[in-house]
Amino acid sequence: MSYERIYQLVEVITGKLVAYRREFHRYAESGWTEFRTASLVARRLANLGYEVYAGCDVIAASAQMGVPSPEVLERHWQRAKQEGGDPGYLDVMKGGFTGVVGILNQGNGPTIGLRFDMDALDLQESHADDHRPVQEGFVSIHEGVSHSCGHDGHTAIGLGVAEVLIALREQLNGTVKLIFQPAEEGVRGAKSMVEAGVVDDIDTMVGLHLYSGWPVGDLTGGSGGYLATQKFDATFTGLPAHAAGAPQAGKNALLAAATAVLNLYAIPRHRQGATRINVGRLIAGTGRNVICPEARLAIETRGATTELNDYMYEAAVRVLKAAAQMYGCTLEIKAMGSAQSANSDPILAARVEHIAQKIGGFSIRPPEGGGGSEDYTYMMRHVQQRGGQATNLGLGADLGGWGHHTAEFDFDERALSLGVKLLAAVVLDTIGAGE
Amino acid sequence: MSYERIYQLVEVITGKLVAYRREFHRYAESGWTEFRTASLVARRLANLGYEVYAGCDVIAASAQMGVPSPEVLERHWQRAKQEGGDPGYLDVMKGGFTGVVGILNQGNGPTIGLRFDMDALDLQESHADDHRPVQEGFVSIHEGVSHSCGHDGHTAIGLGVAEVLIALREQLNGTVKLIFQPAEEGVRGAKSMVEAGVVDDIDTMVGLHLYSGWPVGDLTGGSGGYLATQKFDATFTGLPAHAAGAPQAGKNALLAAATAVLNLYAIPRHRQGATRINVGRLIAGTGRNVICPEARLAIETRGATTELNDYMYEAAVRVLKAAAQMYGCTLEIKAMGSAQSANSDPILAARVEHIAQKIGGFSIRPPEGGGGSEDYTYMMRHVQQRGGQATNLGLGADLGGWGHHTAEFDFDERALSLGVKLLAAVVLDTIGAGE
Amino acid sequence: MSYERIYQLVEVITGKLVAYRREFHRYAESGWTEFRTASLVARRLANLGYEVYAGCDVIAASAQMGVPSPEVLERHWQRAKQEGGDPGYLDVMKGGFTGVVGILNQGNGPTIGLRFDMDALDLQESHADDHRPVQEGFVSIHEGVSHSCGHDGHTAIGLGVAEVLIALREQLNGTVKLIFQPAEEGVRGAKSMVEAGVVDDIDTMVGLHLYSGWPVGDLTGGSGGYLATQKFDATFTGLPAHAAGAPQAGKNALLAAATAVLNLYAIPRHRQGATRINVGRLIAGTGRNVICPEARLAIETRGATTELNDYMYEAAVRVLKAAAQMYGCTLEIKAMGSAQSANSDPILAARVEHIAQKIGGFSIRPPEGGGGSEDYTYMMRHVQQRGGQATNLGLGADLGGWGHHTAEFDFDERALSLGVKLLAAVVLDTIGAGE
Amino acid sequence: MSYERIYQLVEVITGKLVAYRREFHRYAESGWTEFRTASLVARRLANLGYEVYAGCDVIAASAQMGVPSPEVLERHWQRAKQEGGDPGYLDVMKGGFTGVVGILNQGNGPTIGLRFDMDALDLQESHADDHRPVQEGFVSIHEGVSHSCGHDGHTAIGLGVAEVLIALREQLNGTVKLIFQPAEEGVRGAKSMVEAGVVDDIDTMVGLHLYSGWPVGDLTGGSGGYLATQKFDATFTGLPAHAAGAPQAGKNALLAAATAVLNLYAIPRHRQGATRINVGRLIAGTGRNVICPEARLAIETRGATTELNDYMYEAAVRVLKAAAQMYGCTLEIKAMGSAQSANSDPILAARVEHIAQKIGGFSIRPPEGGGGSEDYTYMMRHVQQRGGQATNLGLGADLGGWGHHTAEFDFDERALSLGVKLLAAVVLDTIGAGE
Repeated sequence: MSYERIYQLVEVITGKLVAYRREFHRYAESGWTEFRTASLVARRLANLGYEVYAGCDVIAASAQMGVPSPEVLERHWQRAKQEGGDPGYLDVMKGGFTGVVGILNQGNGPTIGLRFDMDALDLQESHADDHRPVQEGFVSIHEGVSHSCGHDGHTAIGLGVAEVLIALREQLNGTVKLIFQPAEEGVRGAKSMVEAGVVDDIDTMVGLHLYSGWPVGDLTGGSGGYLATQKFDATFTGLPAHAAGAPQAGKNALLAAATAVLNLYAIPRHRQGATRINVGRLIAGTGRNVICPEARLAIETRGATTELNDYMYEAAVRVLKAAAQMYGCTLEIKAMGSAQSANSDPILAARVEHIAQKIGGFSIRPPEGGGGSEDYTYMMRHVQQRGGQATNLGLGADLGGWGHHTAEFDFDERALSLGVKLLAAVVLDTIGAGE
Repeated sequence: MSYERIYQLVEVITGKLVAYRREFHRYAESGWTEFRTASLVARRLANLGYEVYAGCDVIAASAQMGVPSPEVLERHWQRAKQEGGDPGYLDVMKGGFTGVVGILNQGNGPTIGLRFDMDALDLQESHADDHRPVQEGFVSIHEGVSHSCGHDGHTAIGLGVAEVLIALREQLNGTVKLIFQPAEEGVRGAKSMVEAGVVDDIDTMVGLHLYSGWPVGDLTGGSGGYLATQKFDATFTGLPAHAAGAPQAGKNALLAAATAVLNLYAIPRHRQGATRINVGRLIAGTGRNVICPEARLAIETRGATTELNDYMYEAAVRVLKAAAQMYGCTLEIKAMGSAQSANSDPILAARVEHIAQKIGGFSIRPPEGGGGSEDYTYMMRHVQQRGGQATNLGLGADLGGWGHHTAEFDFDERALSLGVKLLAAVVLDTIGAGE
Repeated sequence: MSYERIYQLVEVITGKLVAYRREFHRYAESGWTEFRTASLVARRLANLGYEVYAGCDVIAASAQMGVPSPEVLERHWQRAKQEGGDPGYLDVMKGGFTGVVGILNQGNGPTIGLRFDMDALDLQESHADDHRPVQEGFVSIHEGVSHSCGHDGHTAIGLGVAEVLIALREQLNGTVKLIFQPAEEGVRGAKSMVEAGVVDDIDTMVGLHLYSGWPVGDLTGGSGGYLATQKFDATFTGLPAHAAGAPQAGKNALLAAATAVLNLYAIPRHRQGATRINVGRLIAGTGRNVICPEARLAIETRGATTELNDYMYEAAVRVLKAAAQMYGCTLEIKAMGSAQSANSDPILAARVEHIAQKIGGFSIRPPEGGGGSEDYTYMMRHVQQRGGQATNLGLGADLGGWGHHTAEFDFDERALSLGVKLLAAVVLDTIGAGE
Repeated sequence: MSYERIYQLVEVITGKLVAYRREFHRYAESGWTEFRTASLVARRLANLGYEVYAGCDVIAASAQMGVPSPEVLERHWQRAKQEGGDPGYLDVMKGGFTGVVGILNQGNGPTIGLRFDMDALDLQESHADDHRPVQEGFVSIHEGVSHSCGHDGHTAIGLGVAEVLIALREQLNGTVKLIFQPAEEGVRGAKSMVEAGVVDDIDTMVGLHLYSGWPVGDLTGGSGGYLATQKFDATFTGLPAHAAGAPQAGKNALLAAATAVLNLYAIPRHRQGATRINVGRLIAGTGRNVICPEARLAIETRGATTELNDYMYEAAVRVLKAAAQMYGCTLEIKAMGSAQSANSDPILAARVEHIAQKIGGFSIRPPEGGGGSEDYTYMMRHVQQRGGQATNLGLGADLGGWGHHTAEFDFDERALSLGVKLLAAVVLDTIGAGE
């Protein structure tokens, strides 16, 4: 199979990819509030000729995690409306259902799914003069929110692939599903799309992540070693009392929390591999002279496997419950995000790398060691458990700057067309009709 | 000695007392920001003919505790200017020096000091329709600040006493010092006035507190059993690190804080009497997946005696320091308030009660058990240690409503003229020239 | 009433009192193993003509606390047999029922009870050359057990009183109950005698304690301020596991215990008065590389009142239970001793002091502040709750030496006849037939 | 090279190997008290013609860890004397210097070292009728001590190899060092032999361990994955006080210990690999009503590498020091054992396995995963760091029974001659003179 046609198609849209990326960057929206971004993605896919599903059809409310309050959702939805979101799709996304799936059905044949995440971070972008988004006028206009992990690029690549595949549709035998996912940050969104059945019929599943720390074109065909993780908030509720006048009358939520913190970190290591726990935040109390009536903890567990993470989570819940009982407090635990451990299928990864070498412009590098988490693992494992193959590509886009999740983050936009070329070629290689 | 003249003088100003109280209530100002209140008190004393000292002359900066940030001070100072504070006295109070002393020197003779506290609380007042300050139009116009402990009444009584004593000045042989103190709430202000020398020459020291829970006119001539207390903030500073990627690289300020909290509460009881400790607030951490780099604790110790409080405070500091070392954190401790244990002199208290019975309208009740703290104890002990006598009166002012430090607090204004009568009579009894 | 007759009777037996005391001292027996002592007391009372009850009749097994193991009981019982215990009474005391009650019923009239405790301590007595019991040949021959709290003296006084009262029986109108109690140390024995009904019919209850720290003859007619206390052992049972090979497989009883210890000491103070808690001993673990499978804690709570002690005990149990749950351990709690708070009746105390002054040779001193516990309080409160009066005398017996519960403890034996005189006089004063 | 000669030599001594093993088993001696065993080994080596070093020459006192008290050493030394230890060598071993090295110098050429550990465990051997050592009369006669890890077999193999090599000495070009090490259990002995210079000149270092869990003849040529470890005791010394009468006067060593325990387990995981910590034992306190004056902890840290173990150990010391400061206690830390991480050299391991296959009777199995520690690693790393090669063989000896470190442990003695054959062949292969 020749990729000439792909090269030509991508060359035409290179400028458009940059424009897409910069617009998404400018109107950065964080998890579950990607109203403007998602509604415009949906509109664009529909215009291109994709069968489009959005809102509740692709997001199972019962599996959403870490959703902002209704007031926050409403405020951002109104903002999206004012800032040019697509009115029709905005209506179906109201309440935080900001997922989109575009389907291109080209007859019998396998189904390939591509996943793109769309959300920004709750992090103020730099306004320094030497920050390129400032110089070139696409710095985020939303205070305290910025695309400092490159998902704006992922979304732009997704739209690029959509356009190229439409042009190549006659060469396809099977189905393409383009999945645009909200709320990857905090690993909050993927599970709700899996639960909505979005990846049930996928035989080959491909994701892609840009890395500012790798030279442009560096490629790993199959990242792995993702740690399973559970993010959750725990709230102890006790009873206030005057600390001097009636110390015995209180139920001290801070003592419960302090006991919990120490014992959470003391959960024993596991012989089968790496485990982690962290209490990132503890907010407790009211007045200095009042027995603390409430303490809120932001916690996460991780494990090299889903089983190891489960081990940590279950031990953590036992510690928290006992700490609450010790001080006569009530305990509320709220899931705020989760991801599974996963590994890319080596055969699929090798095929992707082989394709990349045929395309040219890529430099293959081995997968890096783990330590992080990614909720795309929900899609990977779901597909793998049903007999399909899944992988997650890593693509270099270094601009000699700062790391992910910093105020100064930016990436080399030449990676956008590289990404489109590679993904389109993978689709063609997977469900192409042959010469 | 006859108190007829006092009755007549107080009758004339009864309406004025209510008006003063309501104005102070309306423009409620919390500790160290009593710019409007204090500047108007100073102006009024000067107009009456008192020798007036204010600002740095009566507040030792080195002994101020729990002072708001310069920005907050500046903002409230500007507000006071706009809301009618006295421009001249505002200038000397800039930066939070909101104390006032008015002196009436009537020749050789002993010196009697009266202390009135002026500050409101950082507590939003009720705006319910049935809240009398709402109905009668004197609810606090300052959001989040209210006179929910009756210090507005104390200040009004102080001005009333000032006016009566000027009228009686010919009958006095000695000196009257009227001390208007800022920042009693949080026990932050008295020490700075003592350190400024304000009570050095006082032979007889009298304070007064209104109680909404006692029927109008109920009087205790000498409250006591005040617990010594130390209020302080402790901040652990560690080092952030990625909780999954480099858990060993962090210095976990939350673990230091949790260890400290447990061990603070575990400081042993003392055989010599009651001790207390409370960590009222703990604010720690940033992101869920970040090793916590900073934790701030709001702490207080108390003791039935100053020595017992010192025992608790020293033990607490040792615990905090060791907890910091355990996690390689630095520790900063900042004094936020303090009071001493104290008891009223029983002879002086009995004299006050005897005077009250002669005046009529009072009903004597025994002092209540302790449990609370009051920074007027700094003045009491200072006077007592130099051979003088000191007492703190409790005066009932119940309106059938809510307790102190609640949004609905209010009191019966009939107590104002009772208070003025009693204090003026005590002054006359103490340094009166005789018949 | 004249006490001449008492003087004469006591004079005759002064040497016998010393001999009794030294024999009990020599064969010191600690709590629930007072087989030799108690059986000889019972035999002596019977010989004098008392109606004697011993064993299960005066000890309710269900309320015994801190009883040694059957092996230890058996070993000491055999020893008592070899060392001259009374065979008949030994049989009824087998198994640790080492209480004795002697009754002298002299017709209708009130009942007066006198209580004497008989147990020694598990403490090695000094064998230094200058230790009087060594010099005069009555040092304890039982290794690791000694009468270092003077109960040998109490028992001797009890036998002396028994002899005097028999001689005076014709002058009595009512009933005398002489109660010889085991296991006062660790506050383990009194409750079981109360539960057996021993003090049900007592109208006036008198106890006596010798103090080595007070000059001979110093007397307090009514000691008080006894702290209520609960002594108990808590055992966490977890699961061992190889600490390196399978750390996750263990249930760590030491972590449960450490969490419990910290949180036990952190139980809040109570506004109503003094509270105490102590974990005096923690024994945990097996091998260094084994997750600790068992931890045993020796704990005590105290309170200025029985209610305050209950507050502490209930909070402690809640902490222990939650700590067990936190680590999947089981928890066993075993009562090891308890005493109630109590105060002597002031009228009875004053009467005793009045009698003492009539007798001569005593010097009245005020009761000392509390801090300690005494299980005679079970008897005091039981009598008081049924309308009777109770007191506990303190009698000085200083020898210029060491304190109670030390290896060098000894006391001035002149206090023995003083004690007998006083108690006999109190009985006469209470149920005497009159002149 | 042919191994025929080895077969013949081993066949002759097969019975002797069993006899050696059973005698060592019968007179089991635990770490640093292997007086009888070591003196007889030394005597036997000398009789065979080896140059023998023992006592201080091969044990550096400064690096000995976990040595019993002088009383215990003396008692066991006397016992060894009575039970037939070699008088001459006993004299040089007095005080616990129970190491032996036998040297066979056959001219220029490389040096090969073989290491055999000799110590038993402090564990009571089963006396059940079906326990083979009981049935066949070689059960340990030393109460509480037994060869439940097979070191009796290692020592027997060492003597067998010694005998065979003497017979083959003409075929050797180089030096053989037979190292008999004390106190491997608790990883206490190896370091002291390394520090004494015993392995300084070794080019090829071979150890061997029998495993009761593997079928007879199963062989791993190079075990690895040993965890580095540090064993140590920590003692907090505080101050006793009466828990009710003067709780503030104590320095509570148990609170220090409990705080330490919780925070030791909470030492964060390390990104670079597995870490472990355990507090296996905590003994604290005296009386129930005494503030605990002393607490002793038995602790161990481990790490997948020596660096990771150092990380854990340093963090543990910081926690312990801070806990001591928190309660005004002093802290004493005493090293009780240590081992390093190590891996066998794969080339040497492969060579051993190759030799074993030529000999026949072995079945090669892959090395098992780590989790354990072994102080032979001190010798391995020392040799490797100086450019030599080292390995540790694992040899199956299953008897269908119980695991190591159990009362019922036993092993199949057929493994003894297999071990001698293999080690002799390895020596021949390494420093053999050729055909």
